Parts: sequence; structure tokens; C-alpha cells
Amino acid sequence: MADTLVTEMNALGEAAKSAARAIREASTETKKKALLAAAAAIRASKAAILAANGEDMARAKDNGLSGSMLDRLMLDEKRVEAMAKGIEEIAALPDPVGRELARWSRPNGLDIARVATPIGVIGIIYESRPNVTADAAALCLKSGNAVILRGGSESVKSSHSILAAIQDGLAAAGLPKEIVQLVPTTDRAAVGLLLKGLSGAVDLIIPRGGKSLVARVQDEARVPVLAHLEGICHTYIHPSADAEKARAIVVNAKMRRTGVCGSTETLLIDRGVAPELTLAVLNDLTAKACEIRGDDSIRALYPAAKPATEEDWRTEYLDAIISVKVVDGVEAAIAHIEHYGSHHTDAIITEDANVAARFLNGIDSAIVIWNASTQFADGGEFGMGAEIGIGTGKMHARGPVGVEQLTTFKYMLRGTGQIRG
Amino acid sequence: MADTLVTEMNALGEAAKSAARAIREASTETKKKALLAAAAAIRASKAAILAANGEDMARAKDNGLSGSMLDRLMLDEKRVEAMAKGIEEIAALPDPVGRELARWSRPNGLDIARVATPIGVIGIIYESRPNVTADAAALCLKSGNAVILRGGSESVKSSHSILAAIQDGLAAAGLPKEIVQLVPTTDRAAVGLLLKGLSGAVDLIIPRGGKSLVARVQDEARVPVLAHLEGICHTYIHPSADAEKARAIVVNAKMRRTGVCGSTETLLIDRGVAPELTLAVLNDLTAKACEIRGDDSIRALYPAAKPATEEDWRTEYLDAIISVKVVDGVEAAIAHIEHYGSHHTDAIITEDANVAARFLNGIDSAIVIWNASTQFADGGEFGMGAEIGIGTGKMHARGPVGVEQLTTFKYMLRGTGQIRG
Repeated sequence: MADTLVTEMNALGEAAKSAARAIREASTETKKKALLAAAAAIRASKAAILAANGEDMARAKDNGLSGSMLDRLMLDEKRVEAMAKGIEEIAALPDPVGRELARWSRPNGLDIARVATPIGVIGIIYESRPNVTADAAALCLKSGNAVILRGGSESVKSSHSILAAIQDGLAAAGLPKEIVQLVPTTDRAAVGLLLKGLSGAVDLIIPRGGKSLVARVQDEARVPVLAHLEGICHTYIHPSADAEKARAIVVNAKMRRTGVCGSTETLLIDRGVAPELTLAVLNDLTAKACEIRGDDSIRALYPAAKPATEEDWRTEYLDAIISVKVVDGVEAAIAHIEHYGSHHTDAIITEDANVAARFLNGIDSAIVIWNASTQFADGGEFGMGAEIGIGTGKMHARGPVGVEQLTTFKYMLRGTGQIRG
Repeated sequence: MADTLVTEMNALGEAAKSAARAIREASTETKKKALLAAAAAIRASKAAILAANGEDMARAKDNGLSGSMLDRLMLDEKRVEAMAKGIEEIAALPDPVGRELARWSRPNGLDIARVATPIGVIGIIYESRPNVTADAAALCLKSGNAVILRGGSESVKSSHSILAAIQDGLAAAGLPKEIVQLVPTTDRAAVGLLLKGLSGAVDLIIPRGGKSLVARVQDEARVPVLAHLEGICHTYIHPSADAEKARAIVVNAKMRRTGVCGSTETLLIDRGVAPELTLAVLNDLTAKACEIRGDDSIRALYPAAKPATEEDWRTEYLDAIISVKVVDGVEAAIAHIEHYGSHHTDAIITEDANVAARFLNGIDSAIVIWNASTQFADGGEFGMGAEIGIGTGKMHARGPVGVEQLTTFKYMLRGTGQIRG
């Protein structure tokens, strides 16, 4: 690897670390001012951002990118406005830094407080959507962190024009622009250096993208990773389910949007569910153009279903396809989900509170749901504001990762001369 | 690497994963019963444990282990009793699993609760002290986790005899013995496999040992690590400090026990502090046989001090040595600590509440202290009960890692048929 790249990346890390000290101690008002100024700058730079994006789009077309990739890369007036609005919404959130999370006194009079603090320097690696540049920067800024962004190489010009607007916002509030930086090269080796922590400068890496990106990050990272793996989400219909709720929830859980991580990929139907309800649910899905892949029991009842293979139970379709399996009781449903699921979001539909409690306790997923759609797996729907993803690991934060989850804590001990015996 | 080792270690991982499901759902009473039975079994097995330890000690002496290593390895009646008592104390702690950490309702009626859950399978890698086998097993059991322990090769017989007693306790409560397992080989390659997560079975690694162990773990681990790095702790005396408090706190912070991570290694004295107080503090330390290594200002005042080198400001002595530096004001103290410290525990002695607030906010350490000894950096002193270490990273848990910190959480959403618009 070229020494110059190492030097350049370490300098980026040092600058971020130094900027982290400034944003860590910035007041709520200063951070708000920077965010509102950044939103205004994005609106004011609309023409420049769209022009930069046009260059990215032209290059991407030349390189033969697929239609869905091009759609993700594309910015228009509406999307630029949505970015600015998103930053304003983050500006309006309560400041997550400085919250007193707990406080107690010891018999010796020592007063102990657990107080929320920023994490420090966060590296965010993402793919083609240029709007992540704005979202991620705003979430990190609000939570008092410095951020090093590494977007997809296809969106490099768009990202730089968005970065310029955000750095204008920082400058307007008197904050160093190095609070938000972009990796200045598309050299893939730069990502490797970022993942190794830039000589101790990086406190956390958040990958935001597909399975192969997350796998590379988890393999190469030498600093903590807050990863969003896939969402193989389940909805289980129990015999005591209310038929109308079941029909409405299943269609919504699968088909409201098929490309989001909280969409249901596998439907588990209890053998005790009335065949009329099973048929109604499958017909509802088919009417919405959803492909059904069923096990033998389902295909016996609903011959139009394609046969589900072992692979189907492990697949996040992100598409209008659902795998459907008949299970014998709540324990079998739990066992299936624990075996095949991704510990993201799983739901039960039942009117039996005891069975619901069993399911909520028995499933070890970030989000477990009783009688509602799995598509509620979203920071906004939780009332947490914008999120950077849904954590599927066990440590630090599970579920929606919003500004509060981008903080850590420290203990403040206040004494009057206590010494330890 | 031998295929048999891979197979054997993966089987260990699978067994732990399966046992984790059992302990995750065990009731508070069942876990308590297992812990009390384990404590009783340790007392009942005292002769066997001491005999096993005798074998370890004989081998260690043959291998020429140092006196302090031998002392760490050695068990006697008192130490076995302390192990049993430690387990009973952990049994008496409140159950950290199932705590409702937060609960709120959304405008659509969706009820959202954040509930504490076990982490899953924890790998703990430690060095010579065989009592860690008992402590770590009990902390994991109480917090609903399965654990794979890997002790030092020199304590292998002691650890196995302690394990047998703990597994008796699990059996007495009707729990699978695989909730607590020991890596069955001293092959170092087994540690490498554990650090890679045993094909997805391991959720967290906790290294408990010296710098080189932690460095190896951080370099090789492909699963999250909760690490305790060194404690380069500071005490800063501000000009407004109360002289009596300052003298009592500094001697306690350095000399109460020099081998603990919360002992002060560097004393920062403000240039505004009266020379009489500085001299009194240094004389107090010298009277306790503490070696003083000072900067030029300190040596001008106190010629008996040895010169401190750049290396001294970065050194965790864990011994009766202290480095002492004169700083110009609270900002210089903060800058020194941020530059040289290890983000463990740092204290200020001052009667000025504004200066104290500045210090508590400005220092980014797990524990920041006003007018008390840094030796309060301890889970027991926090009222948290036993701890497995002091986290010096930023993610998941900072400071004392007790049973609450060995849990994660999930969200439970309770609805009445809500679908997402």
C-alpha cells in the first residue's frame, strides 16, 4: 500500500479526532444552528448538487449500472428538498448528549451519575445513495460525534457537493469543518485503513449497505462495528388470531414496501388456524401480486403456491415474494424463527395474551411484535426520529439506531473528600 | 490447524448456544438456586479443589513461574471460601434480565417497551487466577448468559475442579451443565477459533488480563470485544483544593492498593497550588514509600524526585511509583489527561464547583471524579455488586462491567392490529 495513502488517511483521522473534541462540547444551540445552516446551504446549493449528481449519473450510465442502482444514485429537486427537511427534523430532536441516564448516592455520600456522552469519531461506509451523506452527517453532528464518511465511488461528486453544504453549516456555527469529512479517495485500500481505525482515531464503524459490504467490514474491522445485517422477518398467525387483524397485518407486513428490512419474508401459519383464514390471507397476498412459496401443507391447500426450498427460509427477498410454512404451535414457531431468522423483527398475531407473552419472551430478536405489522421496525415509527439503520447485533444498540444510540455514557462521581477504606 | 480441533471447538460453541436458550429463559429463582448450589458445591469440594491447585502449583514451580504469578495461582482455604461467598453475593443481586428499561406509547396506540435480555454466549479469556473461573461463571449465569471460559494453562486443573462444582450447581437447579464450559484444551489455536466466534455461536469476547492478551484479542477477534485496557488514572489538584482533602485523597488514590487499575499513576498539580501543599502531598507519598518522578518544576521544589521522562506520562506502574507534573490551569490538566490518559478514571480536587464541572465535562473517561479517590473505580463501590472488569472502550458499557452490563435489550411492541400507513 502506498505510504502516501497511509499518511493521508491518518491525517484525516487526526483531524477527525481533534474535531470530535470540539463537537463533543458544543452546546445544543450551536449544534442546532449548524444543522439549520446546513439545511439552508443544501437548499441554496440545489443547482450545484444537481449538476454534480448529473455528472455521477452520466458516468454511472456509461459504466452500465442497473436501473435500480441508477434510481438510488439519482437526485432531483424533490430529493434535495427531502435531504434539507431531514436535517431540519434532526435539528429539532432533543439533544441526546448530557442526558442523566441514572443517578444514585452511596452510603459514604458519594453521588454517582451516568451521563450520556458522544462516542467520538464514527466511520460510516455506505453505497450509492448520496442522501446518506446528509443523513449520516446530521445524525452524527446532533449526537456530538465527528464522522468520516465513505460513500460509493459512483456517487463521489454528489457526495462532495452535499459535504460542501454541510461544512458551510458548520462554519456558520463557528464549528470546525473537520467534524464531517469524506474520505478523499475512491481507492479501496482507504476503506481497509478506515476499518483498522486510523491509528486509534476511529471509535466505531457503521456499514450501511448490502450483505457483502457488511461482511467485509465485519471481517476487516479492528474497531467496534454497529452492523445492520439482513432482516429475515417473520409473522406468525396463531389459532386464536382475529381474522381481520391477521389479514390486514400480513398484507401490510409483506407488501406495504417490499424493499425495506422490516418487511415480512416468511409467514408462519399455525396448523390450528382455520383453512378459510389461511386461504383468505394467501388470496390477499396474491391479489397484491405477491408470489407465494409454500411448504407441502400450504401447497395442499393452495396449489398455486410454488414449492419452498430450504433456501427460502433463509432468504431476505426484499421483493414481492413470501415463503409460507405451517407450524405446530407457538413453540414450533419460535424454534423456526430462532433457527432461520436474523434476529431483526418478528411478530405474532393472536388474541391470547399468554401465547403472546410466550412469543415475545421466547424470540431473541431486536424487535418482537404482538398484533402489529413488522413494518413498524423503524426509528421514526418508534418516535426516535431519523435513524442510521436497524442494529441486528447484540452489543450497544439493537433495533433502530438514532441519535440516542449514537451516544455512549460516562460516570460522574461527586464527592466531599471520600477515600476508599 | 487440526480438523479435530475445529470440530471439537465448534461442538463446544453449538452446545453453548443451545444452553444459552435454556439460561436465557430461566427464572430468577432457578438461577438463584443454581448459584447457591454452586457455592455449596465449591465448599463441599474444597479438598478436591485444593488438591488440584496443588498439582498446578507444583507444575508452575517446576516451570519457574515468578513469585507474583505463583501468588495469583495459589488457592488456600480462605480463597476457596471467598469464591463461594462471592457466588452467594452474586446470587443475592437483583435479576438484571427482564427489567423494563423504558416504555412509551405511540399516537397510533402501539405500546413500546425496551426490556433487558441476556447477550447469549460470552467467551471469557483470562490468565492465571483460578477464582476468575467462579466469578465469571457466576456473573454470566446471573445475567442469563452461557459462557465459554478459557483460563491460563497453568491453572488448568484448578479451573476444572471449580468448573465441576459449578456444573453440580447447575444440575441441582435442573439447568444444562453446558451453560458453563471450559475450553477443553490448552492448545493456543483453540483461542484463535474462539475469537473468530465458533461459526457464529459466540456473541461477545471479554479478555481479562494484561496488555498483550487484550492486544491479541482485539487483533484476532471477529466478534464484539468488551475490553479492559490499562488504567492510566490521574488526580489533578486545583488551586482551590482543600488541603486536607487533597492530602488524604492523593495518598489513598495512589497507595491504598497500587496494583489495581483505579490507582492514580500521574498526579497533576496546578501551578497555583501553594508550595506548602505540594510539599506536604509529596512528603506524604514518600512517607508511604512511593517513588516520585517529577517534571522540572516538581524537581526544583522537591529535589528528591527522580526526573520523569515522556514515557512516564504513558505508564501504568501498578506499583509504588507516581509521576508528578505541574500544569497551568484546568484546561492544561484536561489536555494532558486527554493526550496521555487511557480514558479509565480521572479525578479533580477543588472547592470550585464551576472548575469541577468543567473538568467532569471536559474529560472523556469512563469515570470522572470530583473530590474523591480514583480507587472508587470499582463495581462494588458503585453499588453494582461484583464486576468482571472496567470497560475502557466506548461501546455498550464503560466503567464497571457487572451483571447489568452483561445484558442487552430488545424492544417489545404490543399492538391491537396496527398497520403502517
